[in-house]
Amino acid sequence: MAKLWQTTLNKSSKQIEHYTVGKDYLLDQRLVYYDCLASMAHVKMLGKTKILKKTETQKLVMALAEIIKLNRKNQFRIKPSDEDCHTAIENFLTKKLGQAGKKVHTARSRNDQVLVALRLYSLDVLHDFEEETVKLIRVINSQAKKWQKVKMPGYTHTQRAMPTTVGIWFSSYADSLVDDLKILGAVRLVIDQNPLGSVAGLGQSTFRINRNLTTKMLDFSRTQKNPIYCANSRGKFENLILLAGAQIMLDLGKLANDLVWFTTKEFDFFDLPKDFKTGSSVMPQKNNFDVLELIRGNSSLFLGYQFQVQEISKNLFSGYNRDYQLTKAPYFSGVDLLKETLKIVLMIVKELEIKSKNLSGALTPELEATKKAYQLVLEGMPFRDAYRKVKQDYLM
Amino acid sequence: MAKLWQTTLNKSSKQIEHYTVGKDYLLDQRLVYYDCLASMAHVKMLGKTKILKKTETQKLVMALAEIIKLNRKNQFRIKPSDEDCHTAIENFLTKKLGQAGKKVHTARSRNDQVLVALRLYSLDVLHDFEEETVKLIRVINSQAKKWQKVKMPGYTHTQRAMPTTVGIWFSSYADSLVDDLKILGAVRLVIDQNPLGSVAGLGQSTFRINRNLTTKMLDFSRTQKNPIYCANSRGKFENLILLAGAQIMLDLGKLANDLVWFTTKEFDFFDLPKDFKTGSSVMPQKNNFDVLELIRGNSSLFLGYQFQVQEISKNLFSGYNRDYQLTKAPYFSGVDLLKETLKIVLMIVKELEIKSKNLSGALTPELEATKKAYQLVLEGMPFRDAYRKVKQDYLM
Amino acid sequence: MAKLWQTTLNKSSKQIEHYTVGKDYLLDQRLVYYDCLASMAHVKMLGKTKILKKTETQKLVMALAEIIKLNRKNQFRIKPSDEDCHTAIENFLTKKLGQAGKKVHTARSRNDQVLVALRLYSLDVLHDFEEETVKLIRVINSQAKKWQKVKMPGYTHTQRAMPTTVGIWFSSYADSLVDDLKILGAVRLVIDQNPLGSVAGLGQSTFRINRNLTTKMLDFSRTQKNPIYCANSRGKFENLILLAGAQIMLDLGKLANDLVWFTTKEFDFFDLPKDFKTGSSVMPQKNNFDVLELIRGNSSLFLGYQFQVQEISKNLFSGYNRDYQLTKAPYFSGVDLLKETLKIVLMIVKELEIKSKNLSGALTPELEATKKAYQLVLEGMPFRDAYRKVKQDYLM
Amino acid sequence: MAKLWQTTLNKSSKQIEHYTVGKDYLLDQRLVYYDCLASMAHVKMLGKTKILKKTETQKLVMALAEIIKLNRKNQFRIKPSDEDCHTAIENFLTKKLGQAGKKVHTARSRNDQVLVALRLYSLDVLHDFEEETVKLIRVINSQAKKWQKVKMPGYTHTQRAMPTTVGIWFSSYADSLVDDLKILGAVRLVIDQNPLGSVAGLGQSTFRINRNLTTKMLDFSRTQKNPIYCANSRGKFENLILLAGAQIMLDLGKLANDLVWFTTKEFDFFDLPKDFKTGSSVMPQKNNFDVLELIRGNSSLFLGYQFQVQEISKNLFSGYNRDYQLTKAPYFSGVDLLKETLKIVLMIVKELEIKSKNLSGALTPELEATKKAYQLVLEGMPFRDAYRKVKQDYLM
Repeated sequence: MAKLWQTTLNKSSKQIEHYTVGKDYLLDQRLVYYDCLASMAHVKMLGKTKILKKTETQKLVMALAEIIKLNRKNQFRIKPSDEDCHTAIENFLTKKLGQAGKKVHTARSRNDQVLVALRLYSLDVLHDFEEETVKLIRVINSQAKKWQKVKMPGYTHTQRAMPTTVGIWFSSYADSLVDDLKILGAVRLVIDQNPLGSVAGLGQSTFRINRNLTTKMLDFSRTQKNPIYCANSRGKFENLILLAGAQIMLDLGKLANDLVWFTTKEFDFFDLPKDFKTGSSVMPQKNNFDVLELIRGNSSLFLGYQFQVQEISKNLFSGYNRDYQLTKAPYFSGVDLLKETLKIVLMIVKELEIKSKNLSGALTPELEATKKAYQLVLEGMPFRDAYRKVKQDYLM
Repeated sequence: MAKLWQTTLNKSSKQIEHYTVGKDYLLDQRLVYYDCLASMAHVKMLGKTKILKKTETQKLVMALAEIIKLNRKNQFRIKPSDEDCHTAIENFLTKKLGQAGKKVHTARSRNDQVLVALRLYSLDVLHDFEEETVKLIRVINSQAKKWQKVKMPGYTHTQRAMPTTVGIWFSSYADSLVDDLKILGAVRLVIDQNPLGSVAGLGQSTFRINRNLTTKMLDFSRTQKNPIYCANSRGKFENLILLAGAQIMLDLGKLANDLVWFTTKEFDFFDLPKDFKTGSSVMPQKNNFDVLELIRGNSSLFLGYQFQVQEISKNLFSGYNRDYQLTKAPYFSGVDLLKETLKIVLMIVKELEIKSKNLSGALTPELEATKKAYQLVLEGMPFRDAYRKVKQDYLM
Repeated sequence: MAKLWQTTLNKSSKQIEHYTVGKDYLLDQRLVYYDCLASMAHVKMLGKTKILKKTETQKLVMALAEIIKLNRKNQFRIKPSDEDCHTAIENFLTKKLGQAGKKVHTARSRNDQVLVALRLYSLDVLHDFEEETVKLIRVINSQAKKWQKVKMPGYTHTQRAMPTTVGIWFSSYADSLVDDLKILGAVRLVIDQNPLGSVAGLGQSTFRINRNLTTKMLDFSRTQKNPIYCANSRGKFENLILLAGAQIMLDLGKLANDLVWFTTKEFDFFDLPKDFKTGSSVMPQKNNFDVLELIRGNSSLFLGYQFQVQEISKNLFSGYNRDYQLTKAPYFSGVDLLKETLKIVLMIVKELEIKSKNLSGALTPELEATKKAYQLVLEGMPFRDAYRKVKQDYLM
Repeated sequence: MAKLWQTTLNKSSKQIEHYTVGKDYLLDQRLVYYDCLASMAHVKMLGKTKILKKTETQKLVMALAEIIKLNRKNQFRIKPSDEDCHTAIENFLTKKLGQAGKKVHTARSRNDQVLVALRLYSLDVLHDFEEETVKLIRVINSQAKKWQKVKMPGYTHTQRAMPTTVGIWFSSYADSLVDDLKILGAVRLVIDQNPLGSVAGLGQSTFRINRNLTTKMLDFSRTQKNPIYCANSRGKFENLILLAGAQIMLDLGKLANDLVWFTTKEFDFFDLPKDFKTGSSVMPQKNNFDVLELIRGNSSLFLGYQFQVQEISKNLFSGYNRDYQLTKAPYFSGVDLLKETLKIVLMIVKELEIKSKNLSGALTPELEATKKAYQLVLEGMPFRDAYRKVKQDYLM
């Protein structure tokens, strides 16, 4: 079927088409549902504002519901020739409904559609991030409580410093994730605005559409009024979501890196069940913690996705630019990676085995040096003198 | 004067010292005030909890007030041999007060001091970002109102698309900045917690200090309880501030880039007063808009600072690591750059000259194509058919 | 079939497996050929050094040849349960040859295999980059020659500066690409060393293998001797290739960005045939140059791939770490993107339409200001005075 | 004194001036020498081509030599009002020589001057990088030889794997640096071309200058002919130098990170003399290896400088853009950082103390598992069977 803007297409332009369309049609599969939701709201609004007839609206809504159903059963597939989900949906409607189908695009642009579908999808994404993070925080906190009294060396400069507890180590991550949720919440506030009806980012006035109506129907908190800002928020909003996600991912990477070291023979503080470990193709004795290394590495991979979205969007001329299309792949990749990593880390935290004996064995006497100095302070010596006295003892 | 931890220092280690201390002592000058504030709260708390005597507390508070005064007059200079502001301050106190001075470091670590001083400084930074951004939003909105009726071409794909207005273009930036403030607000929520008393990130119990007391005295919203998280939030928090700032900087860079193009001979939509422009060393006729190019380039520079803070901190082992020290320079550079850029952009927006005649001249007839199609829709033709019909007309 | 290191695998660990294996088995498909080549050399060497019997060597070589043939017909597919191409190949050999198959892994590690297969693949990649770049340089130069006399405005600060020619503009890109090839050549020098036989990056001496033999058979220039460096060069080498590629990609992005502007209504210097342009879903008149925008955006995408490889590998502990596995996806994505972009840009350069009339129309008189000043210099006036005089004329 | 292009400057534009000039005048101090060298070559060439009179040339050359002398004694300071070294030099010449001074800028642009001065400076930088790297390689190799027989555990997945030697560990870094030098050499090849005479990147023909003459006098290998490429190579060339430097910096960061872990209590393989270590402000017993952490962190800082140069330059319109000015600060910062780090790492490698007893103590029996399997292979068992048998033993 024809692309929306298509004129002719000769053989030599196949390569151009491959380069410009790429895998968009595959990526777009996850937006089908959201475009249908938004299209339903759009046609209902067109109905209420008398731009479409009642019967047209009804037919369109039903056909869109059918697409949602097909899509749920994996039976609505976007073809490469469709280019994206929006064309696939309009083509379906036109084929099924004829005249009515050709009216669905009244008073909106494809840019509108992309923006609103991505916006609805993103709100679901933020919800999932939040939900999985809250679950993880709970599991960490329950571990922190369980191990709150078990002492372990605390480190500064990667060197043993003073005693701390396994509970404090655990809950440092819970507290950090709680802070991340605050950023996530602010990003949700920003994302939660309806771009539908902005039409190519430039405003239009031929039709008396009612943007607040679709805002209400789609359960957005407000309408994103400025049409140029609607266009310019592409890239910006995906970047914000990845930035908020990156804070979580950085915490998970740091946790994994701590564990990479705590599970070495040299530290030997923690362990994981056998199923979490892998072997070596040549060294029969090896038990490797690949999953931890991958979480750590994935935090860099994730930051790379954010980098891509940011750098593609940076300093682009106002209004929609095709460059933005390229932000979809890294955005979706980042979303999937964070969701999966959150689940994996939850399993790891749950199953982490604490080797209490090794931990207490590592509490070597020098870790009490500060305490000794403090003791002298309690006996009346100024802290800096007490510090120097204890230091002297250690140098001898 | 001696470093706090110093033992001996021979000649060959001068290079090491230069490498490890670097320009920290210069950077730290801006933290003197904040460390004094925090140290005052700390000694008052030590007084209230009977760890220091009343007279000691009083002497220390007065000496700290003296440092603040000296610092305001640029008379409290950190020497390279002091390494940082914290040592400089303790050295001053010890020299002036003797025994009492040696007690100021009771029940806290230098890490504590760095964290709390940076936190207080950062809250001021966030306040400044907010204030300057709000000012800029107001100026943009007043320009938007002034030029709301003046039409100009709207662009998609950098190609003329449909008519829009200068007002819509202006306010697209105001709306974007308003969203940025939401992220900034969330970052402030995260930053606004008191790390003082966490002692090297590991907890300590010899002294019965009261952390909530310093929290109250320093006007923090809450105490950051977990001592390992206190240590681990170094880098993370500076990164968050730069990330929030980056959203603003990206808006300013985009605005500047729009203007770079709108002020070319080819577009010729806008101009700036003579004082904003520079000449060429060889081409007598040139009027260049260097300031716009620099704002655009500075958005990349700023992202580089954020990159540095993020990448230095990423995947570091729990607890303080000296790597974090390196985040200070890019953090401060970013802060200064954003503050200055906000002020410059405000001047530019205020002084921007709109060439209305050129703008209306650029509203070439093809920009009305969508309107024509919409007209056909109003007359009853389905949109997709109307679109094809108008397209046909343009191809002929 | 079993993984090489596998012990047991219960249900709860399915998620871990999915996270750790990911899409590696799909990515690895492109390495099948190269692993077979390297395995052939390895078993031949084991034969020559009497570690394998002659018949074993022969059987293994023939079975490997069979895999190559199957793979060429897309009939050798790596299954998710195989994890990677190396296991798939060993499993095939063991199933087919029994005892002999179990011997293929003698005196090498999987790490060896990955390194050598990637190395051979990378040498092909560098060859392709070079070949496509040379082709593009030729086409650009032929365009430069064709248009060498056609004047156009030269720009500084995005403002018209002095006259230049279309030929000079074209060949500036050819010259830049020629320089890029020098970097590419140095990277090839580095990549061209044989890691096979380093065994897990640690050296081994039980078997008297002959690494120089495989070096010769695989046509490497030299053997990479240090086994720890073999392991540590993972990530580093992929990064180098992407860095060299990035220089090319940055040139292509810059060229595309020039064209984005030169094809606007405002400049209107160049055009592209219809098949290179796309329309709008709502604006019937639009002719967009999506392909140019995508090339520009893809340069940022590419840099993101390089960022990922670099940041995953940075500051990792010596020896193989599983994090390196994550560099494969961005490395392969970068390779494919650059190859395709080079071909697309070649088509664009070939088909670019030069609007000579518009170009000469843009040579407005002020572009001759420098020439006027120079004229005065020829007449004896010092340059700076001549400059000031001509400037004065323009200000009036 | 007046800027070259200056017209008027009122009070309100002071802020603009501060924003646009920034600290350029300070940064430029290191280019004074190189600009004088290039200016000398330029005026000599103008003399030979009869554009300047012989006496003018002589006077100018002598005055430039005087600047070099003053500069060496720190007596040629660029003032903020000069903006950059080029203006400062021209102002000095005009003040001293009158008419002749005003002629120095004949047939060149300031852009020319910046490019050629940076190019000459960069060639010195590359020479320094090379020299310091070669020195470091020698020291590493001599350590590798000294410790070639001392065994230590080799690691994969941060877990003990097989025995290796301290010598192999050392020389892995020497070999990696040797490869880095190859990239550095290619970058030098690219940088080594003379941009002087390209005049604002656009070509000029009024004067019959002889660019090859200055190429020869300044000892460049060739002339960079295309004037637009001269302009476009700004940013690109600085980026290339930082990219080559980054490879070295990444090696140094990795080495430092290895040492951070090898010097922990848990590993305790290596140590450094007291002067390389620092203490804690609160923990009297601490010996921290700050210098190692800083080297590691500085590798990220360095990559940030490269990021800034790359991102500022990316996708800029052809011809000089003021954005490029912003690449100076990160470029110079990166250069200084790498040079200093190379020297520090050399000291560390020289002074590293090897704790042989601890190293051999860490060679726990399971490290011999592969050897055991290999023994079974020598006795006739296929490797995969031998592997499984030894694995079985370890599981019991």
